[in-house]
Amino acid sequence: MPTPKPQERLHESLQQVKALLERHRVLESMAHRQEGPKRDLLESLVHRQNLAELHNRLKALHPADLASILESLPSDERALVWNQLEAPQAGEVLLEVSPAVRDFLIGSTDRDRLLAVLSLLDADDLSYLAEAVPPAVLEQVYGLLDAKDRSWLESMVAYPEGSVGQLMSKELLTAREGQTLAEVAEEIRSGQDLPHLADAVFVVDARNVLRGVLPLRQLLIRDPSLRAGEAALADAVAFTPDERARQAAKAFERYDLVSAPVVDGRGKLIGRLTVDVVMDFIRRQSEIEALIRAGLSGEEDLFAPVWTSARNRWVWLAINLVTALLASRVIGMFEDVIGQLVALATLMPIVASIGGNTGNQTVALMIRGLALDRITPTGVKHLFRKELTVSLLNGLVWGTAMGLTALALYRSAALGLVMAAAVLLNLLVAAVTGTAVPLLLQRLGRDPAQGSSVLLTFTTDSMGFFIFLGLASVFLR
Amino acid sequence: MPTPKPQERLHESLQQVKALLERHRVLESMAHRQEGPKRDLLESLVHRQNLAELHNRLKALHPADLASILESLPSDERALVWNQLEAPQAGEVLLEVSPAVRDFLIGSTDRDRLLAVLSLLDADDLSYLAEAVPPAVLEQVYGLLDAKDRSWLESMVAYPEGSVGQLMSKELLTAREGQTLAEVAEEIRSGQDLPHLADAVFVVDARNVLRGVLPLRQLLIRDPSLRAGEAALADAVAFTPDERARQAAKAFERYDLVSAPVVDGRGKLIGRLTVDVVMDFIRRQSEIEALIRAGLSGEEDLFAPVWTSARNRWVWLAINLVTALLASRVIGMFEDVIGQLVALATLMPIVASIGGNTGNQTVALMIRGLALDRITPTGVKHLFRKELTVSLLNGLVWGTAMGLTALALYRSAALGLVMAAAVLLNLLVAAVTGTAVPLLLQRLGRDPAQGSSVLLTFTTDSMGFFIFLGLASVFLR
Repeated sequence: MPTPKPQERLHESLQQVKALLERHRVLESMAHRQEGPKRDLLESLVHRQNLAELHNRLKALHPADLASILESLPSDERALVWNQLEAPQAGEVLLEVSPAVRDFLIGSTDRDRLLAVLSLLDADDLSYLAEAVPPAVLEQVYGLLDAKDRSWLESMVAYPEGSVGQLMSKELLTAREGQTLAEVAEEIRSGQDLPHLADAVFVVDARNVLRGVLPLRQLLIRDPSLRAGEAALADAVAFTPDERARQAAKAFERYDLVSAPVVDGRGKLIGRLTVDVVMDFIRRQSEIEALIRAGLSGEEDLFAPVWTSARNRWVWLAINLVTALLASRVIGMFEDVIGQLVALATLMPIVASIGGNTGNQTVALMIRGLALDRITPTGVKHLFRKELTVSLLNGLVWGTAMGLTALALYRSAALGLVMAAAVLLNLLVAAVTGTAVPLLLQRLGRDPAQGSSVLLTFTTDSMGFFIFLGLASVFLR
Repeated sequence: MPTPKPQERLHESLQQVKALLERHRVLESMAHRQEGPKRDLLESLVHRQNLAELHNRLKALHPADLASILESLPSDERALVWNQLEAPQAGEVLLEVSPAVRDFLIGSTDRDRLLAVLSLLDADDLSYLAEAVPPAVLEQVYGLLDAKDRSWLESMVAYPEGSVGQLMSKELLTAREGQTLAEVAEEIRSGQDLPHLADAVFVVDARNVLRGVLPLRQLLIRDPSLRAGEAALADAVAFTPDERARQAAKAFERYDLVSAPVVDGRGKLIGRLTVDVVMDFIRRQSEIEALIRAGLSGEEDLFAPVWTSARNRWVWLAINLVTALLASRVIGMFEDVIGQLVALATLMPIVASIGGNTGNQTVALMIRGLALDRITPTGVKHLFRKELTVSLLNGLVWGTAMGLTALALYRSAALGLVMAAAVLLNLLVAAVTGTAVPLLLQRLGRDPAQGSSVLLTFTTDSMGFFIFLGLASVFLR
């Protein structure tokens, strides 16, 4: 009977593997404490029994589960498990793990084993791994492919990063438009394995130009004497290899596709895009975006070495220090006012912080709107006006609240008024900056998710300090 | 021939609809400026010609494209387009738009039209919309369903938010285990429409207990005299309705599923989960998380009314003000030191800011690790140590840099040393807090994506001020 709760099954497998690894560690440390023949005995026990058990446990696992397990292990245990995998399974696992872990695994595999693992993969899979494999090994693997696969591989690698061409596969089912459904069905039956996630036959004419898409289910329900060209859906969605993968992902989602044909500029069928690859792409994209927004350079393996992690965060730290230093120079301009009224130093971070937070809310909405193509030129004017009004409203309410707090703390009506005005004004700055910065970055051809937040916080910090201390220097002395 | 570049097609449709809406606005404002019979003439022109054209243009669009168009229109134009849709199309569109826009559309539809639209939907679709429809209307629609559909609907609505039960559909293909593949194929052929994204027949025994999953393609390639029970995959993945949808989504991704059976506690087949629903769930989840991290309460329609938007952001603003106020009270404790050395006021935001940024990097990594189940109890110790080491390394490098900057600005070696020490210590605080806070929130049964960042920034701000000003008060006077 099918087992429900696959997530629990995965969790169980992980626990079992962990237990075996733990036993392995204990046995090994015991062996180390012994000497001579006793040590040899214990060591052989470790290797023959425990590793064999681990090996068997791993062999029964789905490559995707193995990938997940490898990703949650620290590097020494990760290498131990990885080396227990047999070549065919190891190849599947390489395709499933995240890029950071994939690079780690490839890096810790010797050349012969890597060659053995890679030589079992097909051209589609190799093209996916190509960028991570040392060029010398890759060349050797290429040598083992037949000429057709080799030329396919070379064309795949040439497509730009993040394009449909890089994600498409060459395994697909085709039929000529003149064939009857019975003939098509017979051909499929007598053929080899059906390709992965094949839900449709792509119907082409004599020149290999795509004429339509024939869902496999049609072969079951339509009259077998019908021609493929008549039964196929002529208005099906197709992609070109130069299209951006994220656009294709949106179309997969909108039209609930399982697979779709890829055609070249003249409409000739050249490949197939499947929903699993697209889902994977979407997930990775949104993960990377979340990390980028926090100032990490895309992928970082949780268990990456300290040195790699430290460097990964340097760029951002450096940028942050520069912007923080610039913002602090704004305060420096007003040191004499602060010297006269120290309360200003206490209150100024509040003005900066509230601007930063509100502005980042607007930025988050804008980035999402831009990513989903929901922001049009006429919409922009509308949004600007809306965000300004929201800030005005919030500024009046919370500015008054903060003004009263300042009044209560320092018994100065003038200070309260300056505080209220500064909060209101900085919220307006946040609304304008929060709307404008993502738009500006996009117009400059940059990803608004990367950098919007830094630019915004820099503006709201500096302007917050400037407005508050500026008002104070005019009205409070 | 199939049209490539679906994204461009969508963009074109949007432009055409926008042009028609623009013309509508111009014609209407012209009509308003006229009087008497001329006005009537112009108004009839507007309605007969332009709206008819709009109507026709809309009729040809895919519901998903229409949903996307509606989402990128301001509210007045959105209502105009929505009212042009015919009932069957309007129903499909309601299923495709985001929750915020869906609520807007339902709110701007009169009762009769809503009833007409909803009465065309099936039980699965109704259960999806149930929470958004006014109870009185819902009850009337329920009255139109047959008893079986009604009881299905009632059971669906009872499953908890975010569970598999809420996402599953009741449309599925079944076969008895004793049937031959030929019989199964014949039944499918003579049946009605195949359900949406049906890639497999679920094989059950006489008690409706799931025995296996038979991919449709098997019907094409296997021997027709084989029994369904023999041809079916017995180890296929199945779900239970109480499982969390995000766990199911991970399984769909890991095992590249198109559809999967849902069974109750005794293994009886009760529904089916499909990849489109799951993909939609993943995307919405990651969108909502990005907004939540920025302090917005999940869904906010870009074109929501000002009042709704302002309130959506109040909770966060209030929390932010309270934490900023608390952090500023830390500064208040040291006002006499600042009075003696105003440079402290200028430098202190740098210490706070660098802690906040570094800590948020750690938080982003932790949230992702927790979401992907990659953080295990033994892994936590490892991570703590790693993040501390990274912070120590970065603290030494950048603390020295900042100390030298302070020295250069204010010609005081003591101030430079205090600055360097404060940066280093606050980075260590950031590492500990950034690792601990998401773990703590998860252990308390809360979503770490929600709140981690506020708590972290509050800690690094207060501690940054406290460490820097505290060190200054000890060593600088």
